[in-house]
Amino acid sequence: MASTSPGYGITIRVEGHPDSQPVAAITAVISEAGASITALDVVESLLERVVIDITCDAVDQEHADVITSSISRHPDLTVRKVSDRTFLLHLGGKIEIQSKVPLKTRDDLSRAYTPGVARICQAIVDDPADARRLTIKRNTVAVVTDGSAVLGLGNIGPAAALPVMEGKAALFKRFADVDAWPVCLDTQDVDEIVRTVQLIAPVYGGINLEDISAPRCFEVEARLRELLDIPVFHDDQHGTAIVVLAALRNSLKLVKKDLSQVKIIMSGAGAAGTAIARLLTKSGATNIIAFDKDGVICKETKADHDPMRQWFIDNCNPSNFNGNIHDAMSSADVFIGVSAPNVLVEADIAAMATGSIVFALANPDPEIDPVIARKYAAVVATGRSDQPNQINNVLAFPGIFRGLLDANAHKITDTLLIAAAEAIADCVSASQLNASFIVPSVFDPQVVTAVAAAVKKSC
Amino acid sequence: MASTSPGYGITIRVEGHPDSQPVAAITAVISEAGASITALDVVESLLERVVIDITCDAVDQEHADVITSSISRHPDLTVRKVSDRTFLLHLGGKIEIQSKVPLKTRDDLSRAYTPGVARICQAIVDDPADARRLTIKRNTVAVVTDGSAVLGLGNIGPAAALPVMEGKAALFKRFADVDAWPVCLDTQDVDEIVRTVQLIAPVYGGINLEDISAPRCFEVEARLRELLDIPVFHDDQHGTAIVVLAALRNSLKLVKKDLSQVKIIMSGAGAAGTAIARLLTKSGATNIIAFDKDGVICKETKADHDPMRQWFIDNCNPSNFNGNIHDAMSSADVFIGVSAPNVLVEADIAAMATGSIVFALANPDPEIDPVIARKYAAVVATGRSDQPNQINNVLAFPGIFRGLLDANAHKITDTLLIAAAEAIADCVSASQLNASFIVPSVFDPQVVTAVAAAVKKSC
Repeated sequence: MASTSPGYGITIRVEGHPDSQPVAAITAVISEAGASITALDVVESLLERVVIDITCDAVDQEHADVITSSISRHPDLTVRKVSDRTFLLHLGGKIEIQSKVPLKTRDDLSRAYTPGVARICQAIVDDPADARRLTIKRNTVAVVTDGSAVLGLGNIGPAAALPVMEGKAALFKRFADVDAWPVCLDTQDVDEIVRTVQLIAPVYGGINLEDISAPRCFEVEARLRELLDIPVFHDDQHGTAIVVLAALRNSLKLVKKDLSQVKIIMSGAGAAGTAIARLLTKSGATNIIAFDKDGVICKETKADHDPMRQWFIDNCNPSNFNGNIHDAMSSADVFIGVSAPNVLVEADIAAMATGSIVFALANPDPEIDPVIARKYAAVVATGRSDQPNQINNVLAFPGIFRGLLDANAHKITDTLLIAAAEAIADCVSASQLNASFIVPSVFDPQVVTAVAAAVKKSC
Repeated sequence: MASTSPGYGITIRVEGHPDSQPVAAITAVISEAGASITALDVVESLLERVVIDITCDAVDQEHADVITSSISRHPDLTVRKVSDRTFLLHLGGKIEIQSKVPLKTRDDLSRAYTPGVARICQAIVDDPADARRLTIKRNTVAVVTDGSAVLGLGNIGPAAALPVMEGKAALFKRFADVDAWPVCLDTQDVDEIVRTVQLIAPVYGGINLEDISAPRCFEVEARLRELLDIPVFHDDQHGTAIVVLAALRNSLKLVKKDLSQVKIIMSGAGAAGTAIARLLTKSGATNIIAFDKDGVICKETKADHDPMRQWFIDNCNPSNFNGNIHDAMSSADVFIGVSAPNVLVEADIAAMATGSIVFALANPDPEIDPVIARKYAAVVATGRSDQPNQINNVLAFPGIFRGLLDANAHKITDTLLIAAAEAIADCVSASQLNASFIVPSVFDPQVVTAVAAAVKKSC
């Protein structure tokens, strides 16, 4: 699975003597180091020296270091500087505020600030509903995290989580023209998270919870939905569930099976796993067997006061299967993994029913190598951008919030989530649908429009 | 004092028959109603009708209604629509988020979001100081209010305060390229305000408190300064104090008096009044007599556990004057009002010392009509934009935060506030300085640069 990624792109400035053919030397060294060159610029070409900026994608930081030192060790080449493109991009952060109003003259100030602004304040006092008309509230979403479950990095805290929240805000703007703002909370106490979000809520038309670890995320979401009159959406749960449902709908079309009839094995019963299982059940799935790190969840499993685990006990595993995941995979139609690398082995996939569907979504390393899975399964999807069928939340959250804001929505229902999944699935036409194209591209502009329209209709 | 303002600008669409000379009719009606026409556009001109958009500034909402109904009553004119320019400007709010990074290709996503962003998060985990380099923190300020003392409107709550905070954010960007974000808190409890700001602080490089009523604002500021490692600045206090000190320095130059020698009468001992008195004292003032709504503050005044009132008792009124404000004004050199309309009468100004200075800053209606004050005083300033010498915080806060952010400052000192005031005062050159020009224009681009440099030097 070790493939290079632009996320590990570096630019190395290398100097050599023209007589020693430095371009050939550099390309040979980099190719030998297993990296892919994405750009080569000759910066300076003199009789006595040539300076070249070579940009390439590495597999990871260690690989980037290996590439750099390989060039350094070459007798005819000198490394002058190494720039990391991802770090350069992040300098000073990824989002900024812009004024939407002119502020060039004294008259402009009189309208946008005092004394004119007092009239706008008064209008909102007179009719609080005017806040949606006369302020940023109607287009603004808080991206709230406590930094407890950030990407695959775990509990890294609020400051280190900020780059992810900024990225999310940038995506919100890019894909749906939603103004999203990072709220990184310096607490992991549920009461404090809930109270803080409640106190800052007047500015926002919606709350997007992000990277909050289970099971706290369930309580935070449930309590905020109760307290606030704006929609609260935990993207790690519902965003993932929506895209999985969309991908599964299209996959089942390909293999001509019905959601109500298939045997689904799930690995992972955290935030994403729980939301997926709930949404699939709401959509008609009847036979889900879920595993978490302690093994299968069945009638004998102790819920330990965890309402989500209790939900699995009450609503899944109808035959009360009580064995290991390898046995469970036998004759399964669908595998959905949101857990950890290499949970499955090749034999597990081989043992599945004909026309099997494998969604191995653990990131960056899936539950089973997709190349191996494709030897047996009819459809394979992962969370990776370098494989076909990427299950990417970007397909869901921008359109979801675009629709919620446009509808002045106060809450989020399962009907709405299912409608969004159907809209995403339907962006792949019958003629486009094939085993390597079960979800639309994240850059397909019709996705946001379709999801937003479906959400607005369901509000 | 009833003058028209662009803050009350309206555009009226009027229809008339060409034979009845509608343009002449409209201009006559509007002029008779006491409004000033700022634009006239003929939208449609046919044989049977002329449609005209007429834009004019009114004194207030009532006046705008009078103008509209005067046109309606004219036999040859029909009002089709009235648009309020200030309301139009506010539709959908005044600020938005922009992405600073390209998000056009899959590679862009890999760098700005997963998997590349994980490396940025990890870098911040490894060295928390990198948050200032790799996130928005280094340029971002929270504009925090509880909506308890908004402009002259009072306690209108967080939702209705949002237009002011958006305006402030727009000014921050316009004047100092600072990214400021509105935080409107749905609580007026000091403990909750302090705790909430502490919890959201990881995203910000500074906190600008705004429109929080006294005496709570003092405790909120003091406690946050203790808890946070980023600067906390209450603009209503210190922004005002800085600009008053700047204006007073230049005024004293004009009348050739020394701050340490002058008798200063203050009306108002709230947030702004307290900060002004403290900063003037730190700068050398020795004879301030302050009045609040209960009268003079002297040794016999009860502090009632209010530390700011206790400060006035301990540090002001050295002669322990115990009379009314009218008596106090006799032979005073300086009057500074941050209180209420018409606290003074003409005789009070007439009784001041030669070369007197009057800052009547109550908004929108000053402590004394500036036209009357100018009959006796050498220098008169107000908070109004339609009078010379406007004491406007916009001269201070953008440069203050630009300097604090550039210096990675952790706290704010009195030295820094005084340096900022001196920088503002020095933007008016000796040749420019006169009784109608004691502070620079808010649009003078050197102000932000000078204030930021002075602040940075003092950090």
